[in-house]
Amino acid sequence: MTVARVSPVPGSPTVLPPVERRSAIPLGFRAGGLATGIKASGRPDLAVAVTTAGPAAAAAVFTPNSFAAAPVRLSKAHLAATSGDPRGGFGWAEAVISTSGSANAATGAAGDADQRRIAELLADATGTAVDRTLHLSTGVIGTRLPLDKVAAGLTAIMPTLEATDAGLEAAATALRTTDSVTKLATTTVELPDVDGRPVTVTVSGIAKGVGMIHPNMATMLSIVLTDAAAEPETLWSLLRPAAARTWDQLSVDGDTSTNDTVFVLASGQSGAAPVRPGSSEAAVLGAAIETIGRDLARQQAADGEGAATLITAVVTGAADDASARAVARSVVSSSLVKAAAHGRDPNWGRIAGAAGNARLADAAVLEAAGLSAREAMVRAGTPAVLDPDCLRIAIAGHAVFDGTTGGPLEFDRAAAREAMNAPEVVIALDLGLGDGIGEAFGCDLTETYVIENSEYTT
Amino acid sequence: MTVARVSPVPGSPTVLPPVERRSAIPLGFRAGGLATGIKASGRPDLAVAVTTAGPAAAAAVFTPNSFAAAPVRLSKAHLAATSGDPRGGFGWAEAVISTSGSANAATGAAGDADQRRIAELLADATGTAVDRTLHLSTGVIGTRLPLDKVAAGLTAIMPTLEATDAGLEAAATALRTTDSVTKLATTTVELPDVDGRPVTVTVSGIAKGVGMIHPNMATMLSIVLTDAAAEPETLWSLLRPAAARTWDQLSVDGDTSTNDTVFVLASGQSGAAPVRPGSSEAAVLGAAIETIGRDLARQQAADGEGAATLITAVVTGAADDASARAVARSVVSSSLVKAAAHGRDPNWGRIAGAAGNARLADAAVLEAAGLSAREAMVRAGTPAVLDPDCLRIAIAGHAVFDGTTGGPLEFDRAAAREAMNAPEVVIALDLGLGDGIGEAFGCDLTETYVIENSEYTT
Repeated sequence: MTVARVSPVPGSPTVLPPVERRSAIPLGFRAGGLATGIKASGRPDLAVAVTTAGPAAAAAVFTPNSFAAAPVRLSKAHLAATSGDPRGGFGWAEAVISTSGSANAATGAAGDADQRRIAELLADATGTAVDRTLHLSTGVIGTRLPLDKVAAGLTAIMPTLEATDAGLEAAATALRTTDSVTKLATTTVELPDVDGRPVTVTVSGIAKGVGMIHPNMATMLSIVLTDAAAEPETLWSLLRPAAARTWDQLSVDGDTSTNDTVFVLASGQSGAAPVRPGSSEAAVLGAAIETIGRDLARQQAADGEGAATLITAVVTGAADDASARAVARSVVSSSLVKAAAHGRDPNWGRIAGAAGNARLADAAVLEAAGLSAREAMVRAGTPAVLDPDCLRIAIAGHAVFDGTTGGPLEFDRAAAREAMNAPEVVIALDLGLGDGIGEAFGCDLTETYVIENSEYTT
Repeated sequence: MTVARVSPVPGSPTVLPPVERRSAIPLGFRAGGLATGIKASGRPDLAVAVTTAGPAAAAAVFTPNSFAAAPVRLSKAHLAATSGDPRGGFGWAEAVISTSGSANAATGAAGDADQRRIAELLADATGTAVDRTLHLSTGVIGTRLPLDKVAAGLTAIMPTLEATDAGLEAAATALRTTDSVTKLATTTVELPDVDGRPVTVTVSGIAKGVGMIHPNMATMLSIVLTDAAAEPETLWSLLRPAAARTWDQLSVDGDTSTNDTVFVLASGQSGAAPVRPGSSEAAVLGAAIETIGRDLARQQAADGEGAATLITAVVTGAADDASARAVARSVVSSSLVKAAAHGRDPNWGRIAGAAGNARLADAAVLEAAGLSAREAMVRAGTPAVLDPDCLRIAIAGHAVFDGTTGGPLEFDRAAAREAMNAPEVVIALDLGLGDGIGEAFGCDLTETYVIENSEYTT
């Protein structure tokens, strides 16, 4: 069983384009980052990206947390305003701002007013309309943003923004909280221009992982920039299934933040013609977005709080893709599986048990992944279809369980433990029921996670 | 805000009867426990309870895990056979057997055959029909039960069974795996006999907590015995909502075992008249079952793997009880809340975040709690209704957040930390939306949990 490449178009298996972990700014953007003093550590805490040639098509996915933070609510409102679509998932944008150190969550009406003030400052600084600004933040819940520091930071950062790889890397660095590495991913694909000649399109992403600046809520923030051209709603139609297959399959500790946000901005500056919904070009661009999402999610899982090992669950043979993703997510979310991975223990019983608890995702995620609204509503949260007598499990390349031949297999435990002593452990499950595939990304559960999240003074 | 007493009858608030943590065997049962050698430690690992005067009405709730163990599947089949109801939730029973040391899960057809053989041995030993035996087990997944040891143990245990409190305590002791204490709870209520004269009815429960003998799957086993009289289906109608409000609100690490089982057996030997469905007597018996379930769940949470602190989430003011229970369960299930409790950190941001992620329970649980089948299907897994501007939070008696007045409150952190340094920490949330109430029981997340579940050799 090899690592699944989930198709960006349901029913049409597509290999994702290769990804590189480096900074590569697409045409049509300037970016940068600096330290404003929101973070007591003095590390960079303000990231800004702006377009160089008018508004970019923008699409977003946000946290489903009922206590969504002020920047999440404001970004949704802005997207709704610029697109006229009340769902707030796509629209037009000229500037993106991210602050680290304060989440501006659970701050009530005052926090909303603070974020609106930041939008005004950003709009003034970039010469755009207030509702063409998008917002992200991460940090402590329940504290107000220091508006004076953000304002001074905005004044200082604007002249430093660069249409260079270094500028994008500076922005990525300023997204970091306790991340141990700067998270970058880039890919290129070819799309036709209006005359049908091939044009190279760049899709690049930056992200913060799931560490915590002052441990509060693990927040997942990602920004994807591309010089492809697409209408906002088309971009959204590509982002949603890609996110459902990548970021929505990421778990560090099961706690969904109030601030999780993914933005995709398409400047159209590559010269490629706008991709039409449902076209083969849309599939290519969707695969490029998905490969960035997949790689950033893997980086985020690998750098999870206290984590030493990336756990990838790969599920094949499911009744459908939604079931496969549910099983994969349940496996990487299990505290017992995570602890076993930490102990290099090829404990297939915990994996089978976690698989047996798999529940399909929320309706919104199922719908994003391609199910009809009605089917998503009916199936959301229901148990994944499983048959113990059809299940096969392999851990780090060692077959450990085969339900088709009675269950537990003899295997070399010492060799399996040795194979698990690696930066990534792949847990492969074949459900033996159909051709549904999916994967999920998590990390081991370590003493360090507990210590970092309990031993500090508030 | 005081600890919620959830009514056993929807819409009719009833205070649960007081509970005592001691052994008290109801009339009509004999019980005992001994060591058969399944456990390498030589500790008691076989528990048996039998009726003294023919079959008892029996009701059960089982794990929803798709990889339900052989004893779960066999018990369901036996209940279905003796009641004629294919759901397998109620029927008649004369003997209950529990083995510790091997879960008999993921053992395929051979494991099913093993469990059937144990049923035959138990039926022979007690002189009852095979399908009047009920089965529980806990222990390592994927290993076969040592049939010879169980058979010898059965022969040895039968003469030792006693209709005494000591006999029930011996059974409770044999349920234990790594439990630090023997878990017992008992209550009495008065029910009328056929002439209307009050009769004292005893309801007693024994349980194993959520430690692991050879760390594999946390398994929750409980057996409740009563000398009340009720038809099996009536008993089931009382057990299901009680379980939905107690055991289903228990979380140690988010992993649902393959073996979880609760049995209630009613011998009818108290002399009380059979309780009729929907009667006030049924409400009294239901409250007695619920108070046992609630107390055993609290004992199980407090004794969770590596746990030092019982975390009780009490939710009031919800749109309905299902939402209240969802929010409470989400709070006690959050790794970040659990780690904060371990660190005595009054971190309300994590609590608000966890509340914001609350999803209603599975359809089966919602239906058990009293929702119609249709409503349960539609609402299962959907987000709980929440409004940050209406939420109030108190931790260990300290008000920390009030959304109705802008959010974060000033509070004495040192005093709150001191108050959290206790065997039980109550997290109270008032949602400010209605009169729905619910509670949930969990424990803190400690380094010990990680160590116990990672640092051992398989």
